[in-house]
Amino acid sequence: MMTTLKQLNTPQQHALGATVLAWAEQLGTLSEDNNGLTCTYMTATHRETAVQIAQWMREAGMHAHIDAVGNVVGRFLSTDPQARTLITGSHYDTVRNGGKYDGRQGILTAIAVVRHLNDKGISLPFHLEVIAFAEEEGVRFKSTFLGSSAVIGQFDPALLELQDRDGILLRDVLADAGQDLSTIDAIARDPSDLLGYVEVHIEQGPVLLDQDLPVGIVTSIAGSRRFLVELNGVASHAGTTPMALRKDAATAAAEILLYVEQRCAEDKPSSLVGTAGQLQVPNGSVNVIPGACHFSLDIRAGNDAARDAAVADIMAKIATVCQSRHIGYTVEQVVEAGCAPCAPWLMAQLSAAVERAGVAPFELASGAGHDAMLMARVTDVAMLFTRCGNGGISHNPLETLSVDDADVAARILLDFLRHFKPKPARGTRKAQSEAATTQEYTE
Amino acid sequence: MMTTLKQLNTPQQHALGATVLAWAEQLGTLSEDNNGLTCTYMTATHRETAVQIAQWMREAGMHAHIDAVGNVVGRFLSTDPQARTLITGSHYDTVRNGGKYDGRQGILTAIAVVRHLNDKGISLPFHLEVIAFAEEEGVRFKSTFLGSSAVIGQFDPALLELQDRDGILLRDVLADAGQDLSTIDAIARDPSDLLGYVEVHIEQGPVLLDQDLPVGIVTSIAGSRRFLVELNGVASHAGTTPMALRKDAATAAAEILLYVEQRCAEDKPSSLVGTAGQLQVPNGSVNVIPGACHFSLDIRAGNDAARDAAVADIMAKIATVCQSRHIGYTVEQVVEAGCAPCAPWLMAQLSAAVERAGVAPFELASGAGHDAMLMARVTDVAMLFTRCGNGGISHNPLETLSVDDADVAARILLDFLRHFKPKPARGTRKAQSEAATTQEYTE
Repeated sequence: MMTTLKQLNTPQQHALGATVLAWAEQLGTLSEDNNGLTCTYMTATHRETAVQIAQWMREAGMHAHIDAVGNVVGRFLSTDPQARTLITGSHYDTVRNGGKYDGRQGILTAIAVVRHLNDKGISLPFHLEVIAFAEEEGVRFKSTFLGSSAVIGQFDPALLELQDRDGILLRDVLADAGQDLSTIDAIARDPSDLLGYVEVHIEQGPVLLDQDLPVGIVTSIAGSRRFLVELNGVASHAGTTPMALRKDAATAAAEILLYVEQRCAEDKPSSLVGTAGQLQVPNGSVNVIPGACHFSLDIRAGNDAARDAAVADIMAKIATVCQSRHIGYTVEQVVEAGCAPCAPWLMAQLSAAVERAGVAPFELASGAGHDAMLMARVTDVAMLFTRCGNGGISHNPLETLSVDDADVAARILLDFLRHFKPKPARGTRKAQSEAATTQEYTE
Repeated sequence: MMTTLKQLNTPQQHALGATVLAWAEQLGTLSEDNNGLTCTYMTATHRETAVQIAQWMREAGMHAHIDAVGNVVGRFLSTDPQARTLITGSHYDTVRNGGKYDGRQGILTAIAVVRHLNDKGISLPFHLEVIAFAEEEGVRFKSTFLGSSAVIGQFDPALLELQDRDGILLRDVLADAGQDLSTIDAIARDPSDLLGYVEVHIEQGPVLLDQDLPVGIVTSIAGSRRFLVELNGVASHAGTTPMALRKDAATAAAEILLYVEQRCAEDKPSSLVGTAGQLQVPNGSVNVIPGACHFSLDIRAGNDAARDAAVADIMAKIATVCQSRHIGYTVEQVVEAGCAPCAPWLMAQLSAAVERAGVAPFELASGAGHDAMLMARVTDVAMLFTRCGNGGISHNPLETLSVDDADVAARILLDFLRHFKPKPARGTRKAQSEAATTQEYTE
């Protein structure tokens, strides 16, 4: 594998990966808490992190600025001033007590790659923009994708009235940070200028670890449908009510949970997953048959049709189980987010770069949301997942990324950029771009 | 049915049942709360209730007194001063917001029957003692069977140091009520004087309702084994962890719960019941696979062997499920109470009385605990269950007992007493009594 990479005018072994890990370590020292890593939107820690990222961008040869919502934007300009723009990046905010690589790996990998190109005096036939999105996790203001929503021109001004847990308005947080709210609209990119969006991200799951592969190509970012289910049976005496005369809400829930598990496990090709993350018998007593049982359902798949078919089967099963057990029920859908498929032409170019790195191209769906979901609304997207150590644990200080894997991912991004070819035009540039977007996201 | 009953020198139709219901209604007006019925140990309400019961006992022709722990004891004396004693009764305390018949039906039925005998000038060839036990539910001091434990000479003096939720000691509660603690030991009955113990009680379950029968003969009072089970899987991302790579503690619990349900349902002859009354994923999130799931198990049966066989199977299933799902677990047994079988010779006499009342004798196990469980430690016991309306609901203001059923139960008790024959002696009286007790409760 390394032999192949060395042929590609690349830096010395592990240099890119070592840089990414060293930078991630350094950013990880900036935290709102003494222990662990917490970097939530527009705190002092967050702004210090942005300044550091902008500095590294400039040192790598980019024009860098921090925009009105806190995104750090570095542009590595092509020698052709008429060139269009390819965007790469990810987010730099974290969950509370999060990992060092979630989001940041994608930013730092891109900066390391640009620094390498710049050091070698290599220019690209397109403008490369590296965006460190300011907010993706939704921690402080409970609203995800604040950064990328501004970039795609869909920042909702109503969000400015959101309060954090101390009652501070988002509007005031931005003003105090010296941001000019009147320029938020101007952040929006012109879709006709965009060649696409590519994001490198740690997998945050165990699939690549299980496959023994350093990287994988994302096929789509799963949309989620979430439900709150309440089952109502009859609370009665655990000693005096024979099994045949019970209306036990908990065993009804058990039957439904096992069906969800089995239904999703059977549908491997669609990356279908179903989870009851919340489950409880409210005020349960050891000697009382559960009169009620509440649980949540989160159903995701690589495509909406597979997910919706599973949801339909699960809803039918809930009805059947409750009917046969004489249990009442309510189901409330609390989230419905569409799936964002990656663009086959971008995936193909990413896959070629993976193959040239000596790694077997492996495709997987992303079960988690990413900035690429929002970028997909205005341009074609692709994602490269990197293996997540420690069993795939993320959103946790135990999240790990090996220097080898970080390096492989960086070399693949470098190789991808050097071989990148824009999507062949089939009409006027702008009309084509919009048509493709619409077609792919309404299918 | 009524034709048969009228042949037995019985009161006018429904008179006994109407009396029982009227008295229960009157006692139900004495409550610690404005709404519903709450009568917990040694409150003003509880003492007022005891005084009322003692008054009705005296009016029925009994010698009555309230003993040092609050039991109301009425004796309907035989003309033979050397006669031994048959005890009947139940408890007069209630759960919070309980029903009017739980416990009280057994007391009031006995008083109504004695009043009838006394009115008719009928005497019995044995002393009949009606005991209204002061405490069975374990509400105020969290210790059940305070009343009957004193009667069998097993009142634990350590209980005097228990505190209620206001921090008041049981010792002080009794002293304030004017009870002489030094006489508690003297409450103990001499087992050699006892002919047996018979308790009439509302079923507190739906079996007789389901069988369309007014009464049933209890075969045994189930002992309970209770467990707290904790399953430990791995909390991971609900979107990024494929079904095959999950260690989901909640679906493991679901598999165990369904097994408990199925295993108990298959074992109808033993009246086996199993319940997971408490169930929860601690701190569950909609998008996180449950890393832990806690539940309780309560397993009961009409005999200890059937129950223990079920427990063994369930424990084996927990081990198998957790092994195959790579889930860690702990199981803590928190209660183990032996089953108290009813005495066949007493059951046979009760059954004959049921049959003479024109009712098909039907046997059922008691899943709930009763004062008869403690009495069984010193003498042979039997119980007559009465149909519980409203689906079998109890420990609830919705508990109901029809006047017809109350009347049938009272007529059967009356008939049973008039036909009662002591157990044939097979040796010296005392040795025989103790041997029988030991034999039946260690089997």
